[in-house]
Amino acid sequence: MFTANGYYSQLQGNYLFSEIAKRVAVFAAAHPEADIIRMGIGDVTRPLVPAVISAMHRAVDEMGCAETFHGYGPDFGYDFLRSAIVNRDYRSRGIDISMDEVFVSDGAKCDVGNIQELFSADCRVAVMDPVYPVYVDTNVMSGRGGRFANGAYEKIVYMPASADNGFVPELPKDRVDVMYLCFPNNPTGMTLSRAQLKTLVDYAIKNRVLILYDSAYEAYIQEPDAPHSIYEVEGAKECAIEFRSMSKTAGFTGTRCAYTVVPKTLRYADSFGNEVSLNAMWGRRVATKFNGVSYITQRGAEAAYLDEGYREILGVVADYMENARIIRESLSRVGYTVYGGVNAPYIWLKTPGGDSWAFFDELLATHHIVGTPGAGFGRAGEGYFRMTAFATRENTLRAMQRVCGG
Amino acid sequence: MFTANGYYSQLQGNYLFSEIAKRVAVFAAAHPEADIIRMGIGDVTRPLVPAVISAMHRAVDEMGCAETFHGYGPDFGYDFLRSAIVNRDYRSRGIDISMDEVFVSDGAKCDVGNIQELFSADCRVAVMDPVYPVYVDTNVMSGRGGRFANGAYEKIVYMPASADNGFVPELPKDRVDVMYLCFPNNPTGMTLSRAQLKTLVDYAIKNRVLILYDSAYEAYIQEPDAPHSIYEVEGAKECAIEFRSMSKTAGFTGTRCAYTVVPKTLRYADSFGNEVSLNAMWGRRVATKFNGVSYITQRGAEAAYLDEGYREILGVVADYMENARIIRESLSRVGYTVYGGVNAPYIWLKTPGGDSWAFFDELLATHHIVGTPGAGFGRAGEGYFRMTAFATRENTLRAMQRVCGG
Repeated sequence: MFTANGYYSQLQGNYLFSEIAKRVAVFAAAHPEADIIRMGIGDVTRPLVPAVISAMHRAVDEMGCAETFHGYGPDFGYDFLRSAIVNRDYRSRGIDISMDEVFVSDGAKCDVGNIQELFSADCRVAVMDPVYPVYVDTNVMSGRGGRFANGAYEKIVYMPASADNGFVPELPKDRVDVMYLCFPNNPTGMTLSRAQLKTLVDYAIKNRVLILYDSAYEAYIQEPDAPHSIYEVEGAKECAIEFRSMSKTAGFTGTRCAYTVVPKTLRYADSFGNEVSLNAMWGRRVATKFNGVSYITQRGAEAAYLDEGYREILGVVADYMENARIIRESLSRVGYTVYGGVNAPYIWLKTPGGDSWAFFDELLATHHIVGTPGAGFGRAGEGYFRMTAFATRENTLRAMQRVCGG
Repeated sequence: MFTANGYYSQLQGNYLFSEIAKRVAVFAAAHPEADIIRMGIGDVTRPLVPAVISAMHRAVDEMGCAETFHGYGPDFGYDFLRSAIVNRDYRSRGIDISMDEVFVSDGAKCDVGNIQELFSADCRVAVMDPVYPVYVDTNVMSGRGGRFANGAYEKIVYMPASADNGFVPELPKDRVDVMYLCFPNNPTGMTLSRAQLKTLVDYAIKNRVLILYDSAYEAYIQEPDAPHSIYEVEGAKECAIEFRSMSKTAGFTGTRCAYTVVPKTLRYADSFGNEVSLNAMWGRRVATKFNGVSYITQRGAEAAYLDEGYREILGVVADYMENARIIRESLSRVGYTVYGGVNAPYIWLKTPGGDSWAFFDELLATHHIVGTPGAGFGRAGEGYFRMTAFATRENTLRAMQRVCGG
């Protein structure tokens, strides 16, 4: 008799963005005349850049012609894309990552979720608090979360990061086996310095903890001291997997391309006592349960890494970061305490009064602006509120005009 | 201390197609003048049809323009594609499947692997023998395989299907909870009649077994009695999930689009005793670990479902099936016993002498043709050999000329 995985029933029902969508729908129904500006979900608004568009047109033409048609591609991605990635994102920064440590995929969210298949069942997981909900939910689904009580899952170790500790995650007091880190951080928009990241890497090496490093927002870093890759820190190739995405870098949220770096130096014991390579295991996982990314998409992604396309996407990033500056400075000027927005497209503001859902409701009712209440990202997110810099310039300016006056 | 999933170490090292590639490479190095014809791996050779190409060019243009740009799409696929799928593949055959039972993905192989996340840890799995290796390997990786001994995994139940039983899988003698079925079958190229499939559905309902029905090759069915969908059989919506792919239907092996049907009527107890809906669980899995298929790809897939594109892809399928006829009739004429190739692009021939790897080596050495030895698909595949109809017409004719003479 078939029995379903019971751990799904431990997931909390109201996924943050569904709850937001519901509240916005209720408000919009009651106020059909309201011109709502959305600065909640982190989706981009600028189109793909011309170099990417041209490359994809050429690839579509190739697919229509027997001589240049592409069937199954290499499971881990075409060499043309893997080498473009290695050159642009690693070699140019003096980091030694080889092509066979790079696995091209259709999304960092997929990889961040699927990577758990490499863990033994009893691995204990630590996450930052506030946290991108996917790290937590995927672990709950596989039984690593446990019951939910008092705003937290009992088996998960939370590392609070708030203004009180300068947004540097507190090291776990209990044993953990896996640690999720995200820098530049979603939702706080804050980064670590190399020295701060080094402390975490040293802790991981000492305790044989595997770090899952999500740097989906690295393209937004403006300050020189913030590391773009965890591999800029000595020792990280012995303890860390890195996830990168073209979603926010090149506007690929609807085009789907990302990659994961699994260094060959990552070797651990498995649950039967064999010494295993995580690079080989991930390769086997990808080859068995995935069939590669669309050829057309990979040609588009390649174009974003070559000189012309790269210049174009840097222009788009600069444009979003100008939105971030406008939001940060506007809110500061009228007395809000704001964090982030310097090396990330997210602004994390302290909510006057503390209650972040109350602030959400008030901002929507008074100014017709949608943001994301910090409480939705975990207990340490209460008292904060996230705004994104991904709206159009016009909407960003209008939103700030409403909140802060002329 | 991080510990890796030990079950990966139970996987057998030599993945079938890697072993084939290795033997071909050795032969090619020793005989650089040999003109090798590949009829091994099931990849297509014909380009995407014109209607799909036009639709993708239009979609690329939309992505380059702020007004028509698409960011994150709906997790389960755009309604334009889900409704095209429902109309073409189900309503047109009188099958009642609704749009919210269809989940668009980037590949049937991904879905077939990932669907296991909905199973409790102790589910017992049955597969056909010979079998598409992915069904087995993905279960081994999650601990449902057990140790490998005497050509089989100890925890997996094998259902032999050979000429002795007319390629109808033998019902399991032991308790099973999940049953993988693939029709038209890979590798045998054989199909079941509706009545034969009904016997399996009745068994599943009686024993509360969940059927995973892979019909990636349904577009190749030529005979009216072979069901295209398991839902043509009464009761199947109470016991079956169906996987479909555009890879072999529309030549999307390098473009990546597929879908999975999870009926809302699939309700089971979970491991904590709650009654759960597999449709809701799969929806949660997809929303948490996946971000949808590229907008461009989905517009291409839609075009393959609308009238013009559909006519074009039927033409391509007919062309491959003419290859299948040529292979089947040529081999029969010179005395081979052949199966399949009538409702599927695979020909399954009895190897003279029995040993399928010996036949592989001989065919490569004598005629410079690559096929797939049946033993690679499981114990019941020994004594058989698979050839595919996906080569070009010219190569198919040349291969048959070499084997069968003029």
